[in-house]
Amino acid sequence: MAALEVSDFAQAVIDRMGECQDARFKQVMSALVKYAHAFMREVDLTPEEWMAGIQFLTETGKKCDDKRQEFILLSDTLGISMLIVALDQARGAKALAGRPGEKPTEATVQGPFFWPGAPQLELGADIGQGYGEPTLYYGRVTDTGGRPVAGCELDVWSGDEHGFYDMQKGNEMHLRAQFRTDQDGNYRFWSIKPTFYPVPGDGPVGRMLDKMGRHLNRPGHMHMMLNAPGHERLITHIFVKDSPYLDSDAVFGVRNSLIVDFPRHPPGRAPDGRVLEQPYYTAHYDFRLVPSA
Amino acid sequence: MAALEVSDFAQAVIDRMGECQDARFKQVMSALVKYAHAFMREVDLTPEEWMAGIQFLTETGKKCDDKRQEFILLSDTLGISMLIVALDQARGAKALAGRPGEKPTEATVQGPFFWPGAPQLELGADIGQGYGEPTLYYGRVTDTGGRPVAGCELDVWSGDEHGFYDMQKGNEMHLRAQFRTDQDGNYRFWSIKPTFYPVPGDGPVGRMLDKMGRHLNRPGHMHMMLNAPGHERLITHIFVKDSPYLDSDAVFGVRNSLIVDFPRHPPGRAPDGRVLEQPYYTAHYDFRLVPSA
Repeated sequence: MAALEVSDFAQAVIDRMGECQDARFKQVMSALVKYAHAFMREVDLTPEEWMAGIQFLTETGKKCDDKRQEFILLSDTLGISMLIVALDQARGAKALAGRPGEKPTEATVQGPFFWPGAPQLELGADIGQGYGEPTLYYGRVTDTGGRPVAGCELDVWSGDEHGFYDMQKGNEMHLRAQFRTDQDGNYRFWSIKPTFYPVPGDGPVGRMLDKMGRHLNRPGHMHMMLNAPGHERLITHIFVKDSPYLDSDAVFGVRNSLIVDFPRHPPGRAPDGRVLEQPYYTAHYDFRLVPSA
Repeated sequence: MAALEVSDFAQAVIDRMGECQDARFKQVMSALVKYAHAFMREVDLTPEEWMAGIQFLTETGKKCDDKRQEFILLSDTLGISMLIVALDQARGAKALAGRPGEKPTEATVQGPFFWPGAPQLELGADIGQGYGEPTLYYGRVTDTGGRPVAGCELDVWSGDEHGFYDMQKGNEMHLRAQFRTDQDGNYRFWSIKPTFYPVPGDGPVGRMLDKMGRHLNRPGHMHMMLNAPGHERLITHIFVKDSPYLDSDAVFGVRNSLIVDFPRHPPGRAPDGRVLEQPYYTAHYDFRLVPSA
């Protein structure tokens, strides 16, 4: 570029915020502009590529409606949603800085299928009847120091044996409920062993993934949200250990610490006393919550 | 972050493109992901801020229609469009690397108001009648070595004396035309002295600019597009030297080399022989085109 210098337009934009009254907004916008320009300079983006980007963003916006959020799907599939989750959990866990042995359960993405107001059921209830293979979920909720968390609200939700969530099929709740841990922090409930399923692939994000050489699938998982007074909220999944796509989750949500064995058992008496006439699975997982700062 | 590490999700996304068949797409997406994640890590973006970003992008997409491109406006007002213009011109000017004295005319943004198929008029024609203050534009088109470019197509367009372009008002062309340079590369035509005007402020980008503490205005300018066989296309403006907002163009399009004196003259005979009964302006600018590689 002997004949023409490419000016520092990023700095010019940042300098234009002298009258900005919101210090945090100014900080975020300054960094956004700095990194966006650095990206385009590094790849020497052409006008045709820029226009393809404009058209992609426009189409992504047009695809959004009450039921579909294509920009969140974009964020998910570019690993951005998981980055935001991890940054948020790291901030919440700063109270543990002086306690190196105390590690909380890792968070992962909430996803688009949380539905507030699920039925509040007794421990041990079965929310999977009429769906896939029965599975007993059980374990204990403690804080990072090992103290039991009694009365912790535990929201659980998953897709059915074909990978479809209730809200994708109609207006009736299925395969979701809210439980409360007992005096010792224990929980247990019956549902199904979840299967893998694809994120929506019929929009611009689907085309992007195809061009990236990627598939659309998420490995099988049970969603869990834990709320207890005096503790940071935890939103996470339990992943099924033998599920396909564990090493290539389309939204990068898998953490090794969340992968759980789902041993299969012959018909008979399950650990909670229930007698089953068909084979069933068990999934054991203990949660560790961060005490609020 | 003693208790939790924030994994390198960016690298995980990049690693997921092993099957990508398009090397350039892979390069661009890898850099995009790298810089997008670096931005969010640097500012430690919160879930609430992330959601505000999702909503902003969605609303920006919804605002786009046949007449309005809010994502281009976003690109313009964040200095990105000018960066793309400058990168493109620098690539086109690489042929000049061995000729340090040869500097082409600087490019700037095309903007949303170019309308192909403007009337082809004789040199000296007046396209400003019935509008603002008459102005004679004249000069010479040469290559960067000083050789005249004869028969160069010169598309010109501007807003009216209130800052409105014809296409904002209806379906009839006004204040735009195509001329051709003569044997010696000279051009001349009459139009008006353009005034400053605001970019559209009634959408999400307008709200963003307001929060950034910025105004919406562009300084007065005449658009020029030059096409000549054997030369790189040049899209640029001539800026009016005494216009407000020259130092704060909402889209960062101003280059010092494009700011031109518009001297005012008393009624009488203009340099091209025309006799005016009212005061008029003149604007002299010589263009230098890059020979094609």
